[in-house]
Amino acid sequence: MTIAASSQQTETALAEAVAAQRGWVAELFDRLAAGSQGTPGITRDTYGAGEDFGHRLLVEHGRERGLAIAHDIAANSYVTLKGRDPAAPCILMGSHLDSVPHGGNFDGAAGVIAGLVVIETLRALGITPRCDITAMGVRAEESVWFQVSYIGSRSALGTLPDGALEAKRIDDGRVLAASIDACGGDSAAIRRRARHLDPAAIRAFLEVHIEQAPSLVESALPVAICTGVPGNFRYPAARIVGRHDHVGTPRRFRQDAAMAGAEFAMLLDRIWEAEEAAGFPMAVTLGRFHTDVAVHGLTTVPGSFAFSLDVRAYDPAVLERVEARMLAAIPEIEARRRVRFELGARANAAVGPVDPGIVAGLEDAASRHGIGTMPLGSPASHDAAAFAAAGVPIAMLFVRNEHGSHNPLEAMEIDDFLDACTILADWVVREAS
Amino acid sequence: MTIAASSQQTETALAEAVAAQRGWVAELFDRLAAGSQGTPGITRDTYGAGEDFGHRLLVEHGRERGLAIAHDIAANSYVTLKGRDPAAPCILMGSHLDSVPHGGNFDGAAGVIAGLVVIETLRALGITPRCDITAMGVRAEESVWFQVSYIGSRSALGTLPDGALEAKRIDDGRVLAASIDACGGDSAAIRRRARHLDPAAIRAFLEVHIEQAPSLVESALPVAICTGVPGNFRYPAARIVGRHDHVGTPRRFRQDAAMAGAEFAMLLDRIWEAEEAAGFPMAVTLGRFHTDVAVHGLTTVPGSFAFSLDVRAYDPAVLERVEARMLAAIPEIEARRRVRFELGARANAAVGPVDPGIVAGLEDAASRHGIGTMPLGSPASHDAAAFAAAGVPIAMLFVRNEHGSHNPLEAMEIDDFLDACTILADWVVREAS
Repeated sequence: MTIAASSQQTETALAEAVAAQRGWVAELFDRLAAGSQGTPGITRDTYGAGEDFGHRLLVEHGRERGLAIAHDIAANSYVTLKGRDPAAPCILMGSHLDSVPHGGNFDGAAGVIAGLVVIETLRALGITPRCDITAMGVRAEESVWFQVSYIGSRSALGTLPDGALEAKRIDDGRVLAASIDACGGDSAAIRRRARHLDPAAIRAFLEVHIEQAPSLVESALPVAICTGVPGNFRYPAARIVGRHDHVGTPRRFRQDAAMAGAEFAMLLDRIWEAEEAAGFPMAVTLGRFHTDVAVHGLTTVPGSFAFSLDVRAYDPAVLERVEARMLAAIPEIEARRRVRFELGARANAAVGPVDPGIVAGLEDAASRHGIGTMPLGSPASHDAAAFAAAGVPIAMLFVRNEHGSHNPLEAMEIDDFLDACTILADWVVREAS
Repeated sequence: MTIAASSQQTETALAEAVAAQRGWVAELFDRLAAGSQGTPGITRDTYGAGEDFGHRLLVEHGRERGLAIAHDIAANSYVTLKGRDPAAPCILMGSHLDSVPHGGNFDGAAGVIAGLVVIETLRALGITPRCDITAMGVRAEESVWFQVSYIGSRSALGTLPDGALEAKRIDDGRVLAASIDACGGDSAAIRRRARHLDPAAIRAFLEVHIEQAPSLVESALPVAICTGVPGNFRYPAARIVGRHDHVGTPRRFRQDAAMAGAEFAMLLDRIWEAEEAAGFPMAVTLGRFHTDVAVHGLTTVPGSFAFSLDVRAYDPAVLERVEARMLAAIPEIEARRRVRFELGARANAAVGPVDPGIVAGLEDAASRHGIGTMPLGSPASHDAAAFAAAGVPIAMLFVRNEHGSHNPLEAMEIDDFLDACTILADWVVREAS
């Protein structure tokens, strides 16, 4: 069977085939939530019980439907509808199955289930695709756990940076290498960069993800087509060392680490404001920003302060100049406040450009299906960026979502999700038929 | 026996009598430290085991020397050398016996032991004083525990504010009233303001205390004579409520509680800098200043932030205008950052002016003994301020101390301490002979 691009009947059949999946989709989201409760919210911990549950559910779904199942050296999971030509570059659709602690059910998982919906749609339409069509459950995207970005995708692509395998989970201190092995991966293979995925053998990596801000809610649109994934630089575990002193210590003697932290935050905030005003979108997040709970108190000048820093932008030049200004300002704050910054380890991720051809195809598909979309930069990091950095053509679709993400209140409507799946399925059908 | 003010021999005899106490003084400080270890440093918790130990040691010392022992409704301890005239207003010397967690051995305790040294000096000189001479061990001065100032002294004076007895200890949640009763006090009597000390029956409250900044170290002087105790306003448990969001959330959607906290801190810092530049010493301390450790993370925009605030100054007008400016600025920060401040309970303490006559007497005494002193505002709060607020004439002496206080490194030399005792003893001998 082939699909004529002009056929109205074909569009209708595809949209109906997607819509027909609604029952199991809702049930699968519900089962996923029920098995990874983090009261409040959802906790699918990276290389832990919560994430493992998500992968078991994915594999079980694939097995029940007779799809091919595979795992790789990073314990990523692959559910594949086999294509006619085993040598043809495959289409990967997916996202991550882990979550932040007390996060929501859709951040990550939606992209994996979207891949499954596309596969079921192809089957419902009686299509045997030209190439393998795979839904990929990616491990370890949420860097809150090991403070390393894109662990699962970069391990599979052979691009995980040196030293990352020695990272320790922030809550229980488990080492990443051992955690990977415990979930069925092979950290030794990752260490020697034995890549499981060859970028040249991947036609595209396509990631559906909930929007993590209310742009779509604001615009009353169900889906956005991503214009780019930001790069970042990070200092996950920075400290400011001052001196604990009595609340009565005069200003000129103080070495107040918290005041130094506040000054640092306001410095970055001003840089950020100026960049955005000049037309360069970026973001600064001091996610952990705190005095030392073991010793702080009402009547003690804080002598130590800890923070994490994530700075992201779509343009590598913006990242470079923001970091340079930040590093230049620190000695001034140190001198003025009589403190010492210990920035600790630095991490970074490259900017992830989207593939213009695929984006155009997705825009066409949306238009043909009458689904309203808007272009939207992904301010968040996503595994797609790791694929882009490895040379794989990527694209992303964002689904309208209320209340942001990384919190228990995230709310995605299944209707909006199925709109994204329709756009994605249309592109895949045209590409792989 | 009477003392002639002009007699060089008298000065020498008094100085020698003070110096002769060195042995037991050093031993008593050591025993106090050994019994209240808080590794690192010293922990004499308010109405807890550490503070209790200090009071037991004080009482034991008094009993061994045949001095009169008393306790009051707040479980404060009094060791008294009885005077010739029971109706004559007494001289109280003392300070607190509690400490912050992981603090030092001298903050507070030095003032109690100084009182004991003066008593022993009077006895060594064969003086039976005109009035009672008392070393008072005050309870519960370190407001870090119950977030209430001057609990022991204000309870004894019948000036503890309404509601204070319901305060809960910040570490274990114990209620103040029950904690007082468990240490032998009578919270019901405090509640009905049954004051134990009549301000009219106190000639003076004299407090020796280590300096909590390095002014004396800087000036190479052993002792300072206090020019005033600051008042304060406090918000011990304030919060900023924003919204937890994904690290990728664009600026215009963020409700970043930590950035709001940083802006608030810098606002107060600018006000502080301007007041000091205009000649008004004050201090701002955000002792606790932190994102929520239960939910914060590298990739989460902080949706909640907690802080404690202590603002202190020697002039009530400064406190008033700083608080007014702060309260006026909060709605602007709330609007700009889309957050909500919840300041919580407010506490305050009155400015404590020193008695000019006693200060002049202490200056004379120092001069006659050839002990170098300087005038110094106490930036810290002290029980003396509670006595001043009740109408008791007060004075304070600060002893040189390295490394600040409220930390394990505070370091006071016994020589410097005995210099302060000499000045104090001289004044008491002249006043009470």
